[in-house]
Amino acid sequence: MQPAIIGDLRAAFDATTVLTGVDIDARYHTDMAGIAVAPPIAVVRPRSTDEVSRFLRICHQARVAVTTQGGMTGLVRATMPMPGEIVLSTERMNAIEEVDTGGGVVITQTGVPLQRLQERVGEVGFMFPLDLGARGSCTIGGNISTNAGGNRVIRYGMTRDLVLGLEAVLADGTILKGVRKYIKNNTGIDLKQLFVGTEGTLGVVTRAALRIFPAPAEQQVALCALPSFDKVRALLDLSRKRLGGDLTAFEAMWNSYYRLTTELVKGVAAPLPTNHPFYVLMESSGSDGERTRADLEKLLEEALGEEIILDATIASSGAAAAAIWRIRDSSVELSRAIAPSAGFDISLAIDRMEAFADAIEMGVKTIDKDAFAIVFGHAGDGNLHVNAKYSPLADKQEEMTKLVYGITGDFGGSISAEHGIGILKRPYLGLSRTAEEIETMRTLKRALDPHHILNPGRIFEI
Amino acid sequence: MQPAIIGDLRAAFDATTVLTGVDIDARYHTDMAGIAVAPPIAVVRPRSTDEVSRFLRICHQARVAVTTQGGMTGLVRATMPMPGEIVLSTERMNAIEEVDTGGGVVITQTGVPLQRLQERVGEVGFMFPLDLGARGSCTIGGNISTNAGGNRVIRYGMTRDLVLGLEAVLADGTILKGVRKYIKNNTGIDLKQLFVGTEGTLGVVTRAALRIFPAPAEQQVALCALPSFDKVRALLDLSRKRLGGDLTAFEAMWNSYYRLTTELVKGVAAPLPTNHPFYVLMESSGSDGERTRADLEKLLEEALGEEIILDATIASSGAAAAAIWRIRDSSVELSRAIAPSAGFDISLAIDRMEAFADAIEMGVKTIDKDAFAIVFGHAGDGNLHVNAKYSPLADKQEEMTKLVYGITGDFGGSISAEHGIGILKRPYLGLSRTAEEIETMRTLKRALDPHHILNPGRIFEI
Repeated sequence: MQPAIIGDLRAAFDATTVLTGVDIDARYHTDMAGIAVAPPIAVVRPRSTDEVSRFLRICHQARVAVTTQGGMTGLVRATMPMPGEIVLSTERMNAIEEVDTGGGVVITQTGVPLQRLQERVGEVGFMFPLDLGARGSCTIGGNISTNAGGNRVIRYGMTRDLVLGLEAVLADGTILKGVRKYIKNNTGIDLKQLFVGTEGTLGVVTRAALRIFPAPAEQQVALCALPSFDKVRALLDLSRKRLGGDLTAFEAMWNSYYRLTTELVKGVAAPLPTNHPFYVLMESSGSDGERTRADLEKLLEEALGEEIILDATIASSGAAAAAIWRIRDSSVELSRAIAPSAGFDISLAIDRMEAFADAIEMGVKTIDKDAFAIVFGHAGDGNLHVNAKYSPLADKQEEMTKLVYGITGDFGGSISAEHGIGILKRPYLGLSRTAEEIETMRTLKRALDPHHILNPGRIFEI
Repeated sequence: MQPAIIGDLRAAFDATTVLTGVDIDARYHTDMAGIAVAPPIAVVRPRSTDEVSRFLRICHQARVAVTTQGGMTGLVRATMPMPGEIVLSTERMNAIEEVDTGGGVVITQTGVPLQRLQERVGEVGFMFPLDLGARGSCTIGGNISTNAGGNRVIRYGMTRDLVLGLEAVLADGTILKGVRKYIKNNTGIDLKQLFVGTEGTLGVVTRAALRIFPAPAEQQVALCALPSFDKVRALLDLSRKRLGGDLTAFEAMWNSYYRLTTELVKGVAAPLPTNHPFYVLMESSGSDGERTRADLEKLLEEALGEEIILDATIASSGAAAAAIWRIRDSSVELSRAIAPSAGFDISLAIDRMEAFADAIEMGVKTIDKDAFAIVFGHAGDGNLHVNAKYSPLADKQEEMTKLVYGITGDFGGSISAEHGIGILKRPYLGLSRTAEEIETMRTLKRALDPHHILNPGRIFEI
């Protein structure tokens, strides 16, 4: 029997907007963490903020829960429908409305894939600096609701830092028209912060004003090999000193990541031998091509002279730079190639990273003697990704999770740097937030979504 | 007769913590906007987060309102006590607890004056980039609760962008222990955002983890004279292109500001003649002193050659740089020198600024034929300050306010870029926020401070 709300939705929207039964494609209940136990009771695909508002008002009155979906590239099961939920797909809210180069702002609907926005802005000589491996499928709405980080945080910050204004719909259908272009706007409580990184639990973001920057004339990418993590830190310090604001990425890879990715992932080559303990991908961006390259060359020469690095290569073309980036961007493909493994995304102080990684490596072997850790990440932002590879004979996810988060806690880290909490990490939220903080999150949830219809049970239990 | 709560406070704290009657100095009811109609019923001066918590619990139970004070340099009457309120002074929470250069973080209590934090961080070769004219007296807590902007937003963002973690106390005394050092920490709702820029209405911030950066080896300051605002924009575009991330300040001054400040404010000299239509103060920061200066010289030569600027001087010493900065930093002194005037702080698109300023200049003369406008500000951030000077025969504050905000609205601007709303701008909040937004602010206030004891009536009426 169909739930009563389906009739209300069919009456309120045209047939292409409301999908049910066999019309619901599996992609609405499949994400990068797997497939849902049941399909949603309906998929609603609004085209506008007003349609989202009308839809939520119906759900609010009927007390039916909604999960909002972007590109389904999340890793924590935040947008996988739970039984009885309706999916709100943003896929038809995909208009880039305005690119304002004078003001340095793009205004877009939130169903737009990140890469399409990057390309559109690139056409007029600008850049939207947010960038991550899932760029082709993840959406701006997903980026905002997870406060996505990615490859250029070291220079441009997280998604939160790029958001100037948002239009969002509250659980009861109230529209907050906050698409404004100002960098500075201290007029009361900054409501848009409620919708950044809150995983769709406090509202649905429909439109955004985002910062864009003149595209640097030149980007230079280098790959370095290093003998120890101390040297990784020394290279970061030296790069900051020599390149200043031109340093736009600093990605560290432990040997296991670099070696296995270049060995196992199709189409990924190794520009440097695979026997070095550590690798760093550096990107430098500047307005003067020759100087940017000369500065990077000089920096690498100095680092070689001081024995900070053992070897290095600077990409000689755009294609070569893309090939180096492909190593770092293939983490999902690597985790598929080595399955089963348990993946983690943690923050901790850079001076604890080496000891942390060593403790993880020792720890995983106590659970499974064939297990090993693959460590890589945004070292310059205090953010590491860890893949704990174990043998396929038994499911070790939970044991690995407890181990890794236990060690993360011991080292004073956070259990989620950029991936979020969703359902998967919910049991562990208390490791990174106090009881009072979680209770205050619940207070906000109750105030803004009293019937708990927006992504209920994600982040914390209600 | 003393209110009953005074006895409870005296019982809970030592005598130096609770001041009443003649022990209350006038500075607790005087700010830059004037003096309160009545002194507070008490001044409480806690030393720690725990003391703030105990204090607020007493006030919450007694339903007595509290206004939290930092350096009293605000311009919107947010911390001036209203009749019957208690002042929470942060003046004894003044410890800088840790300067972590490895992690790029300083941990501090919030009663610390900005300049003291800048100096402490400077001792170890680092910088806390927030900077504004009131640096000597404004406090970190005030900077956070107003989301202060200032002179280096163009490179380092607003205070919000510099906050890594906060410890805050809710109205009922609940302590949120959120002092964490991570740049990335996507673990649920980012509660610290509730306390940034909310003018003490949602909680009291007691400790903060703030980002610090290696101090640039070299800062170069130039002052330029320009023939038109179009050229100011052209200089900004050229500076961004040539200096990139090294451009750390870009401050525009209309003729009236530059001329009157250098003529009327004691100790402020004019390094360039006072007859040019526009002036720009630029600051460039880099790791290589010679190159930073050479780059700036080259930029100014190019700008002279292209007739973007008419004249320029680069400070030849730290003292000369400070003298140029003093022109821009003397806005409060100027407004005192020309009193009476009405001051405003607005955001708008840079391509509307010239027409906006012209409309203001015409408008003020329709109110008072002797009136004129003084315009200056952080042009690179889309932020202007306006002083409408009028003749002392009649109070024109309200008329000027309506005029300036009306024109701001016509030009699509925001009525507060960095100063906040407080009591003074509350009647005009609806010009920059929708009814639904203001109602959502009230929802948050009710949820977190159900008895409305924290700075009640600031930002919006309860």
